[in-house]
Amino acid sequence: MRECLITTKGLTREEIVEVLDYAAKIEKNPSSYYGNQSGKIIGLLFYEPSTRTRMSFETAIKRLGGDTISMGSVEMSSVAKGESLADTIRVVAGYADAIVLRHPKEGAAKMASGFIDIPLINAGDGAGQHPTQTLLDLYTIRKSAEKLDGLNIGVMGDLKYGRTVHSLSHAITKFDSRLNFISPEGLQLPDNVKYDLERSGSEVHQYTNLDEILSTLDILYVTRIQRERFPDEEEYRKVSGQYRINNKTLENAPKHLKIMHPLPRMDEISPEIDGSDHAIYIEQSHNGVAVRMALLDLMLKS
Amino acid sequence: MRECLITTKGLTREEIVEVLDYAAKIEKNPSSYYGNQSGKIIGLLFYEPSTRTRMSFETAIKRLGGDTISMGSVEMSSVAKGESLADTIRVVAGYADAIVLRHPKEGAAKMASGFIDIPLINAGDGAGQHPTQTLLDLYTIRKSAEKLDGLNIGVMGDLKYGRTVHSLSHAITKFDSRLNFISPEGLQLPDNVKYDLERSGSEVHQYTNLDEILSTLDILYVTRIQRERFPDEEEYRKVSGQYRINNKTLENAPKHLKIMHPLPRMDEISPEIDGSDHAIYIEQSHNGVAVRMALLDLMLKS
Amino acid sequence: MRECLITTKGLTREEIVEVLDYAAKIEKNPSSYYGNQSGKIIGLLFYEPSTRTRMSFETAIKRLGGDTISMGSVEMSSVAKGESLADTIRVVAGYADAIVLRHPKEGAAKMASGFIDIPLINAGDGAGQHPTQTLLDLYTIRKSAEKLDGLNIGVMGDLKYGRTVHSLSHAITKFDSRLNFISPEGLQLPDNVKYDLERSGSEVHQYTNLDEILSTLDILYVTRIQRERFPDEEEYRKVSGQYRINNKTLENAPKHLKIMHPLPRMDEISPEIDGSDHAIYIEQSHNGVAVRMALLDLMLKS
Repeated sequence: MRECLITTKGLTREEIVEVLDYAAKIEKNPSSYYGNQSGKIIGLLFYEPSTRTRMSFETAIKRLGGDTISMGSVEMSSVAKGESLADTIRVVAGYADAIVLRHPKEGAAKMASGFIDIPLINAGDGAGQHPTQTLLDLYTIRKSAEKLDGLNIGVMGDLKYGRTVHSLSHAITKFDSRLNFISPEGLQLPDNVKYDLERSGSEVHQYTNLDEILSTLDILYVTRIQRERFPDEEEYRKVSGQYRINNKTLENAPKHLKIMHPLPRMDEISPEIDGSDHAIYIEQSHNGVAVRMALLDLMLKS
Repeated sequence: MRECLITTKGLTREEIVEVLDYAAKIEKNPSSYYGNQSGKIIGLLFYEPSTRTRMSFETAIKRLGGDTISMGSVEMSSVAKGESLADTIRVVAGYADAIVLRHPKEGAAKMASGFIDIPLINAGDGAGQHPTQTLLDLYTIRKSAEKLDGLNIGVMGDLKYGRTVHSLSHAITKFDSRLNFISPEGLQLPDNVKYDLERSGSEVHQYTNLDEILSTLDILYVTRIQRERFPDEEEYRKVSGQYRINNKTLENAPKHLKIMHPLPRMDEISPEIDGSDHAIYIEQSHNGVAVRMALLDLMLKS
Repeated sequence: MRECLITTKGLTREEIVEVLDYAAKIEKNPSSYYGNQSGKIIGLLFYEPSTRTRMSFETAIKRLGGDTISMGSVEMSSVAKGESLADTIRVVAGYADAIVLRHPKEGAAKMASGFIDIPLINAGDGAGQHPTQTLLDLYTIRKSAEKLDGLNIGVMGDLKYGRTVHSLSHAITKFDSRLNFISPEGLQLPDNVKYDLERSGSEVHQYTNLDEILSTLDILYVTRIQRERFPDEEEYRKVSGQYRINNKTLENAPKHLKIMHPLPRMDEISPEIDGSDHAIYIEQSHNGVAVRMALLDLMLKS
């Protein structure tokens, strides 16, 4: 296992499969792993709000018998007094056995990892990467489809700023599945991500309309289109309306299609889908615990 | 023990006594219960500020060897991004073994419990209920008076919006004690609570002046009158002044009268009372730990 | 060990050395102390933002197997509803085994300790004291210089409002080292602190220019000069510029000089110093864990 987890680019297929296999083992009997990391402490540095990621990391280490210390909100910490990320991270590296960092600036995790000699996990850096989200996404896909190769996967929404999309796309290239990107003009995959994907041998299939591709999909990964990305409200409403999933949108969807979402969702997926066999986004969030338990247990094993 | 604790209405006398008896046993030797819930995790979802309730739940589970995960403040969570309570609660139900929820909207706890299949404890829902506060109130009364029947109990202050009052009143109806409600016009017990109490066989005695009833009371339960409830400052000052407890107010009080308050108090009770034998409000808050330990240990026992 | 730790004034040389010796023992093998305080709970009441102090207390008790409960930020607690410090502290004293208090008002810790009968540790009270910071400062000095007597120590920056300086100065008087105070006019040591130091037999040497004394120093303790202390921006810039440490400032510094800082630092110390042998401020912050483990383990030992 690598000492740090900054992006999914550097992860090999074997490393990914190792985490997923271990997570699957843990999921069968999580309580038998209690005590594996007793006395270990994870430092949580979240420079941006987070519920799911932070809480599931907390759950993961506590289910292993360890504990957390948290910087708390930026407003209540030394960051408010103007302390640099470099100083904060070096200090906390003397308290904790590993650090989980979320930061609004792309590249922050890589920079921070250079200052310390304990493991650092990137829990989201701006529009950059979010590799543990990807691991739980892959875990969810594999659990549902029973494989990671030979799938037709659609990724829809804000593909420009969505770091979960960037992380997931890079990881999928290690497997033999096809990626289809569905987004409005202006929110398409950034050129650098597209370039990376193509360089690693993937074809990048882009669409502006879900209907063009829906009937062929095994997985549809939906992400949020954020109001803030649009100059005016009307433009936003027009665009986002086309990327909403409801019963009508899914009329021609394959029966076995599974719909994923990193959450939180606003109205990209109508609650009327929640009870259907298509919906696996809540279960997807739950998978974060076993996957992060696996990752932490592998990283902290001395 | 019930799977969820939403209101005190549904609790039987036997269920209440079971918790209180177990809490009394725990209080005698709390450290011997350490380890009972090792590896268990409580999810704390507080959509409103709380010190006492949140901290005593945290203390309770940690004294049992378990741990907590917390959504943190609303501003720092996905709620700020607009996530629905239903989504948040379903996600956290995949992380935790039980959920403690405080929410500003009456009925939120009942609604939320319908979405999940792990135990949920209502830690206050708007002007609705606050059942664990009631359990610790009853525990305090029983510890002080050595019984829950045959008492004359006064409840004073804002009886309209005070959820602790609503919860406590419903619970007292299971016992053979008399309830006396003392409040200013406009802050009297809501009709639906009054109706419920009368339907369960209780007489509702209402007063606007403490002096009418003080000399007969065993217990006086004081609650805060909130400034926000009054259209103008002068009206507030006039009314709230009549509902303040100090040495003078208590001149004709029975020697054995005990004064309770759910805290925080502002100036409803003068600090000059703190050292007197009447004051049991600080001890009352401390009882929250044993009672919540009892409740959690009964609920999580598998 | 004393029941409470409010100031460094009351600490004897022997008590200080006891904590430092125990911390040194712990530092050699911290994991062997895991479990010493299992089931114990520390109540964290921080009425002001803090990263280092709060997180290192959390780390310390968790490394001993104990846990914390935290009031959280003032905005999210009953304090926001107007609860008095006296009430809050009395309530929490019923939950926790010891309390760590930070408060913006000088004297708050002493006042608070009078209301409760569990140990209280002052984690900073306004411009007053910060005794655990001092213990880790002394630990750092001793670890680096291998003694606490016979040293020439410079303390520079805002000596008027800096509580770490006040605490450290009082403690140094128990040892046979010389204290040199370097500060701009207006930010010099307050008269009451100066008086206390002189009364305990110390000479107070004051300078406005680091160059006057730098070449003789073993230790230079730098503190932040806060913008808020100055009526206008220009005055601030002029003054603070003279109290910044960089390679040029240190041209005539002794080779063995060690530079300390309680952190967070703004620009008092240039990052170009970070890699030099002079810099021990990051290590200094790390020492907080062993020192606080020692203190808590001694205090909670029953």
